[in-house]
Amino acid sequence: MSKGLPKRSEDYSAWYNELVKRADLAENSAVRGCMVIKPYGFSIWEKMQSVLDKMFKDTGHSNAYFPLFIPKSYLSKEASHVEGFAKECAVVTHYRLKNSPDGKGVIVDPEAKLEEELIVRPTSETVIWSTYKNWIQSYRDLPLLVNQWANVVRWEMRTRLFLRTAEFLWQEGHTAHSTSQEAIRETEQMLEIYGNFAEQFMAMPVVKGKKTANERFAGAEDTYCIEALMQDGKALQAGTSHFLGQNFAKAFDVKFANQAGQLDFVWGTSWGVSTRLMGALIMAHSDDEGLVLPPALAPIQVVIVPIFKGKEQLELIREKADVIRKQLLAKGISVKFDDRDTQTPGFKFAEYELKGVPVRLALGARDLENGTIEIARRDTKEKKSFKIEEAVTQVESLLTDIQQNIFNKALKFREENTTKVDSFDEFVKILDTKGGFILAHWDGTSETEEKIKEETKATIRCIPLDAKEEPGKCIYTGKPSTKRVVFARAY
Amino acid sequence: MSKGLPKRSEDYSAWYNELVKRADLAENSAVRGCMVIKPYGFSIWEKMQSVLDKMFKDTGHSNAYFPLFIPKSYLSKEASHVEGFAKECAVVTHYRLKNSPDGKGVIVDPEAKLEEELIVRPTSETVIWSTYKNWIQSYRDLPLLVNQWANVVRWEMRTRLFLRTAEFLWQEGHTAHSTSQEAIRETEQMLEIYGNFAEQFMAMPVVKGKKTANERFAGAEDTYCIEALMQDGKALQAGTSHFLGQNFAKAFDVKFANQAGQLDFVWGTSWGVSTRLMGALIMAHSDDEGLVLPPALAPIQVVIVPIFKGKEQLELIREKADVIRKQLLAKGISVKFDDRDTQTPGFKFAEYELKGVPVRLALGARDLENGTIEIARRDTKEKKSFKIEEAVTQVESLLTDIQQNIFNKALKFREENTTKVDSFDEFVKILDTKGGFILAHWDGTSETEEKIKEETKATIRCIPLDAKEEPGKCIYTGKPSTKRVVFARAY
Ligand SMILES: [Zn+2]
Ligand SMILES: [Zn+2]
Repeated sequence: MSKGLPKRSEDYSAWYNELVKRADLAENSAVRGCMVIKPYGFSIWEKMQSVLDKMFKDTGHSNAYFPLFIPKSYLSKEASHVEGFAKECAVVTHYRLKNSPDGKGVIVDPEAKLEEELIVRPTSETVIWSTYKNWIQSYRDLPLLVNQWANVVRWEMRTRLFLRTAEFLWQEGHTAHSTSQEAIRETEQMLEIYGNFAEQFMAMPVVKGKKTANERFAGAEDTYCIEALMQDGKALQAGTSHFLGQNFAKAFDVKFANQAGQLDFVWGTSWGVSTRLMGALIMAHSDDEGLVLPPALAPIQVVIVPIFKGKEQLELIREKADVIRKQLLAKGISVKFDDRDTQTPGFKFAEYELKGVPVRLALGARDLENGTIEIARRDTKEKKSFKIEEAVTQVESLLTDIQQNIFNKALKFREENTTKVDSFDEFVKILDTKGGFILAHWDGTSETEEKIKEETKATIRCIPLDAKEEPGKCIYTGKPSTKRVVFARAY
Repeated sequence: MSKGLPKRSEDYSAWYNELVKRADLAENSAVRGCMVIKPYGFSIWEKMQSVLDKMFKDTGHSNAYFPLFIPKSYLSKEASHVEGFAKECAVVTHYRLKNSPDGKGVIVDPEAKLEEELIVRPTSETVIWSTYKNWIQSYRDLPLLVNQWANVVRWEMRTRLFLRTAEFLWQEGHTAHSTSQEAIRETEQMLEIYGNFAEQFMAMPVVKGKKTANERFAGAEDTYCIEALMQDGKALQAGTSHFLGQNFAKAFDVKFANQAGQLDFVWGTSWGVSTRLMGALIMAHSDDEGLVLPPALAPIQVVIVPIFKGKEQLELIREKADVIRKQLLAKGISVKFDDRDTQTPGFKFAEYELKGVPVRLALGARDLENGTIEIARRDTKEKKSFKIEEAVTQVESLLTDIQQNIFNKALKFREENTTKVDSFDEFVKILDTKGGFILAHWDGTSETEEKIKEETKATIRCIPLDAKEEPGKCIYTGKPSTKRVVFARAY
């Protein structure tokens, strides 16, 4: 707490890294690329999990658990899946250690070599579809709507806390259906849920769209995604939902008998969000003083800081504070009363600002005399005195207001940083100056998309679902196009 | 559902295995020793998690997440820990696959060999204490009360669903304290919590005790445990809580400055329960018809089965059933209305019996005429007709009654199968006939304990915390002893 965070305007990346560490969200571990999610950071993730889990269950999904390990041969069963996932992954080759002959520590026992190597799951389609083969015989077994909360590992070379780590936590939904239409509806429904979660709980506006063929999930027919814009003008993919067609059913021979008794391959989807959402949440709203959390996901929504000299004063303040605390708790609002006598009020104010607690109440000896209380909001940093009787209703409406305000602020930012562009020169200029989302025409080919990426490092984030039909010319080739897509540099 | 389960009296082990599979709890996966926890089984585990998680949080613990991988060298840092855990474990040696030169599938890329092998965590003391070193400087940072829900891997040779699997799910608490006394109190508190959970939620009576030196956790000064008795007369260790002394603090150099400014090593505890509890739950109460679940952990507490001919009748029944369903839901009771027309009522009755749903309501056309409803309880299989207006209060009291009844039944079973024994001959005879818990005197040496184990396969399950001081002679050596310990053959 001794000195402030780096400023976003000076070094956005250093600001992010320092914020994640100082706000006690996460840190790097001794194992390269693997993070430790600290209690405060984890309590935010738990809030996300509980909201999402309820959304999944309300739409008929159940949780299950599938093995951490995947036999190496499974990865090769779906042709494009292996291209995408059988590259950078953790490979288990042995199952035993033994004492080192030199007496120092332990070594891998060469006699305990696995016949077939096991891969630590980078995603679970293969192991799940090999299981579904035994669960599905007839249309009566469908739809099968399963989700799993799990850890996965992808051996990333360059890692950043939450945004890109070798091990991360996520949920992966895997559903099986009797018709293509039903599977597509499921894919769209889950995108809708992700979008609602991002906007209503994370207070983070997102563009919903489809990925181009280039950016599709390995093994999918279609990948839908939600894309958010960060404060540095870069895009962040916050969730994906894949229509798998019959690809995995064919790879793992999963057939069902329809009502007429005919056998057909099952239609599949998969969809996921991960601890990457933590990175998005941090970057979407926070400022140079620290984290700004939406009340809907803040583990502590309100903190009460007593300003006191001596035990006697503290006890008088505690009495008043307790009334407010209990009234707030009864309304389902989480409150912390910070009575530490080892830190000054000023230290505490800075700490809760750093940790993004939405509302701070301060109660001192003079307030007791006057029957007042100071209420400060984290998002705008405004503070104001109220009659103590008004505290609870003020806090309640303030929490609603903050949730809405940070969404509006992020939406305004995105609108100001979304630019329509009609030439490649303009495209490059905008990218290198303000960044953000760029709406431009594209000729629909992977070749053009790749050339633009090579020259500018910008990718097509998505073809928005609500893109208007509008005749135009590809900014790169001049060929005809019917709608604009969203380009950006991305995390 | 076509034929019944094996009978417990004929083949207890086959009964267990079949029950786990047919009740949709879990199954083996293609990866040896790794299970798939199916949706219904997982929903029971989720109930357990949510109750335990609340108990942990109510006693001041927070969740966090630590890496899946442990550098090989970490395991060697605590001398006895390495003996216990650095044996049968999954070893990651490589981080990349590549296409096979013969064009068939993928192979491990020999160039992507890790400098230091990584172990998939068998338990996380080492990686967590290496992290705590940076989190703890002063007494102000203590106590540190952290829990993690995670998957762990121990390469077991002989595996059984839930009871012993290579990968399993668990929670592991890891706490750090400034004094030995406080750490011991924590160890005891967590044992108390596990005991309450087992008895009040699982309806499973347990003996609380301390392990002998032989059976202690590798790296602990003292291991406390809860031991339950299964219907086949074997014991099952259902949870452990370890007082680690300063062992891990010394191994990872974790010191704190006390209030006087002096440096000392931190005192630690760790404690855990796992998906093994699922095995205990299944074996504690179930019968030859299937699972018997305590209402406190049943995902579906009440099922309503309509007995109907044709859609019109179904709709009339649904109307009545819906009133009951909503009233039960309002009381926090989970209810399922099974309106499938693809299965007969008889099939459904057998299915819910197999799945252990505590209360079944049946509602037919005649019931509509008479204003009645049939209520059946799973534990005793009694059924009786009631006036439909009484349904909700009857169900409510029945759920309480079932919870108590299955606990009482298990307690009575344990009492009948706990035998005081004063000679080794008697000890062997009881073991080979009725089994169960045997209370006997023991001379307190590891040597005697091991000899008894070799000769009888029985181990000392624990030295009960409430064991009475009572002079006696060791059943094996005749040497003096001051209290009886609990022997049993165990899972
Ligand atoms: Zn997109
Ligand atoms: Zn014991």
